[in-house]
Amino acid sequence: MPSSSAPLTIDDINPKVINFEYAIRGEIVLRAQCIQQDLLTKPSSYPFDEIIYCNIGDPHSLGQKPITFFREVLALCDHPALLDKSETHSLFSSDAIARARHIVNNIPGGTGAYSHSQGIRACREEIAAGIEARDGYSANANDLYLLDGATPGVHMIMQLLLGSEKDGILCPIPQYPLYSASIAVHGGTMVPYYLDEANGWALEVTELRRQLKLARAEGIKVRALVVINPGNPTGQVLSEENQKDIIRFCKDEHLLLLADEVYQENVFAENKKFFSFKKVSRSMGYGEKDLSLVSFHSISKGYCGECGKRGGYMEVTGLDNDAKEQLYKIASVNLCSNISGQILMSLVMNPPKSGEESYKSFQQERDSILASLGRRAKRFAEALNKLEGVSCNEAEGALHLFPRLHLPERALKAASAIDMPADTFYVRKLLDATGIVMVPGSGFGQAPGTWHIRSTVLPPEKKLPDIISRLSTFHQRFMDEFRK
Amino acid sequence: MPSSSAPLTIDDINPKVINFEYAIRGEIVLRAQCIQQDLLTKPSSYPFDEIIYCNIGDPHSLGQKPITFFREVLALCDHPALLDKSETHSLFSSDAIARARHIVNNIPGGTGAYSHSQGIRACREEIAAGIEARDGYSANANDLYLLDGATPGVHMIMQLLLGSEKDGILCPIPQYPLYSASIAVHGGTMVPYYLDEANGWALEVTELRRQLKLARAEGIKVRALVVINPGNPTGQVLSEENQKDIIRFCKDEHLLLLADEVYQENVFAENKKFFSFKKVSRSMGYGEKDLSLVSFHSISKGYCGECGKRGGYMEVTGLDNDAKEQLYKIASVNLCSNISGQILMSLVMNPPKSGEESYKSFQQERDSILASLGRRAKRFAEALNKLEGVSCNEAEGALHLFPRLHLPERALKAASAIDMPADTFYVRKLLDATGIVMVPGSGFGQAPGTWHIRSTVLPPEKKLPDIISRLSTFHQRFMDEFRK
Repeated sequence: MPSSSAPLTIDDINPKVINFEYAIRGEIVLRAQCIQQDLLTKPSSYPFDEIIYCNIGDPHSLGQKPITFFREVLALCDHPALLDKSETHSLFSSDAIARARHIVNNIPGGTGAYSHSQGIRACREEIAAGIEARDGYSANANDLYLLDGATPGVHMIMQLLLGSEKDGILCPIPQYPLYSASIAVHGGTMVPYYLDEANGWALEVTELRRQLKLARAEGIKVRALVVINPGNPTGQVLSEENQKDIIRFCKDEHLLLLADEVYQENVFAENKKFFSFKKVSRSMGYGEKDLSLVSFHSISKGYCGECGKRGGYMEVTGLDNDAKEQLYKIASVNLCSNISGQILMSLVMNPPKSGEESYKSFQQERDSILASLGRRAKRFAEALNKLEGVSCNEAEGALHLFPRLHLPERALKAASAIDMPADTFYVRKLLDATGIVMVPGSGFGQAPGTWHIRSTVLPPEKKLPDIISRLSTFHQRFMDEFRK
Repeated sequence: MPSSSAPLTIDDINPKVINFEYAIRGEIVLRAQCIQQDLLTKPSSYPFDEIIYCNIGDPHSLGQKPITFFREVLALCDHPALLDKSETHSLFSSDAIARARHIVNNIPGGTGAYSHSQGIRACREEIAAGIEARDGYSANANDLYLLDGATPGVHMIMQLLLGSEKDGILCPIPQYPLYSASIAVHGGTMVPYYLDEANGWALEVTELRRQLKLARAEGIKVRALVVINPGNPTGQVLSEENQKDIIRFCKDEHLLLLADEVYQENVFAENKKFFSFKKVSRSMGYGEKDLSLVSFHSISKGYCGECGKRGGYMEVTGLDNDAKEQLYKIASVNLCSNISGQILMSLVMNPPKSGEESYKSFQQERDSILASLGRRAKRFAEALNKLEGVSCNEAEGALHLFPRLHLPERALKAASAIDMPADTFYVRKLLDATGIVMVPGSGFGQAPGTWHIRSTVLPPEKKLPDIISRLSTFHQRFMDEFRK
């Protein structure tokens, strides 16, 4: 019999929950939030005057402005009574008014009604048209699931696939820890494959084969392969040839390919280009019968950066009808994703066109954000590579850097003495000395014996010199302290 | 080895997913959507000219208008540039402008940034103040988790509690099938307790005790008790005395009380009043150490009915710190709920006050919606009770009716002959004959050998006479057809 008057304790909690980690909003971030509160009342008690959050890809929190056209349309859809007022024309652009009217006319119950569980059909059709324009291959609104960000889509797919710990998912190491967390809470097994850091975080199919074989030998039924392209936290952009090899591997091994493509608009390297896995597979002549593929996209990244709006989609192809029905059932329990996020996702995939009033300002806003992100990524990576014992692959895309730290033996021992991973030890000291919040590499997984940190490239350009200088000074002192 | 070129099929799907049902958006609704499409091109092929969705509590889809003040604030928060324009004052009420300015000032990154994983602190503080005003007992912003509707909160709690099929949750029968679905996909066991239909759907603690004992005898560790008050699909409102008994039961048996209180504003019966479980427990002198309690609320119901905005909260009290940390971790993986939903939830809990410009119009809008819902519930229940072989308890609250059907023997046999539950058989014939969409009672659970249907009370008042007349005609024909 349980004790009769204790409240719920850790003994009542699902052990699968206790066992997973999510470092991006973990201990270091909670510590940073406490310091931030402290700074309000005791500004002189720290050697810095603000916290710089480099832990999470949250552009607006670091000053990035929303795209004006998007916000105009959202406001009008929220309060459609405005559409009939003459004053509205002096406050909103004409194409935003026209677009909002079109959207509102296509949502019979308005933005306050549940949509179809896969999302408003009109929004899905606009997104399908956007995918077709991007890829040059057809896309179907029936294959789209509109989501509150990409995250719930990952959970839905894990729920769909993972019946027990005998069901495995191939995941990159390092990886975005949503995957490990979602696999853990849904009771499956993560089957890791290692990206090759020495080779620009390359994804080698030989490594996939090796890990698949090992997992199968242990009786794991591997259900799917996760590929993050552009990479998070690693920033590499896959070549088309590499993608073809991965697609053949999935087809041959009957694996669902889970393509996390949320950073598709964030490609900085001049010699690189984003290709969707759907486009590459169709270019190989692979259709619905050949490859099961889920592609995730989001409004939170790219140039849009609208994290707080929670919008995203997944495009699901190559499932048979019975399997699709089960996925629809999972979606239907959640009723639908938020309508503003759905609308915004459709705007991202169908932005203002040449000739429309907002086209020029939209282009300027978008291009200036993307160019600035590219400059920041390059500058930050260069600065990191100048630090003693730090090596950082070029950021080809996405919003993060994942430099390796070659730490002195005494630092490793000092961390080990307090039972802390060496990268956490470093990141914590960095926070306490500078107010800069980064995430230890151990939160993403890394080759045994190596240590990394993840930083976004999002701090505004005007602050970057100061941040780099604080980081460099801290790093030199850290190395000096532990050198002997 | 799996076959090498088949796409994902039902054989690859988690059996826990295959096994659950979610009738509210199930087969009948899909059939209705097909007919609706058909009606556009072949209006003469059906004996009705529109589909009336009584399957889901989605007020705006049936014509309910949003609260003007709420939408004004949302639009201004989405596009804060409006706050600085003089024309804005001719389009928006002054208190909406002031409120939006206050909110925007309290979200440093704007509505496009991720919030704290529990939600924007300023919104949580307003909600906590609203709970205090409602209950007369203190509420803490740290105990609140803002959600994309109440649904994700239920999933989070199930994830937190359910480690294996040996973990059970006591759930009412009939119940809102989110609970059975969520328990199933998270791998736990639903422990049913039956509401007493003959006694106005009363919740008897003796029945709770009986079922708990049976479950424990089977080795199930029962973790929590779900109570839906006002009831869904059953519409009863619990008395304070009954609530006290339930609270004592939870304390004595070390059960987390999951109080689904999303219909708290929808109480129609004049002799009934909603009391939150938190208020009742505090009035008994029970504090954090005595009772573990989660209360769910939502913007989708009440007078607000903003289903598409996806906003909700759960207030979590009586968990020890380690357990709270695990819950926070689950929330953090999902990053945060959508900001517009968070803002709207805070407006519902802190609506315009006396003396503010929008106060009167807000009151009028709210009261007129609630009064109309009450009239519709009463009228619909009366009409159902006039049908041969139909008995319906009074709808004291919520937005649904759950009448019992006493069907002729020949109808039961006809259904059984095509391997269909008799209530599904009835509901399908109802749809085909009238365009009215209701949900079979089997989707909610019911005492063996009894048959029910669930209908919302949401169709607009001007359509109600026609709907009732169509339903009555259909029902009489159905009874006549199967009488002998």
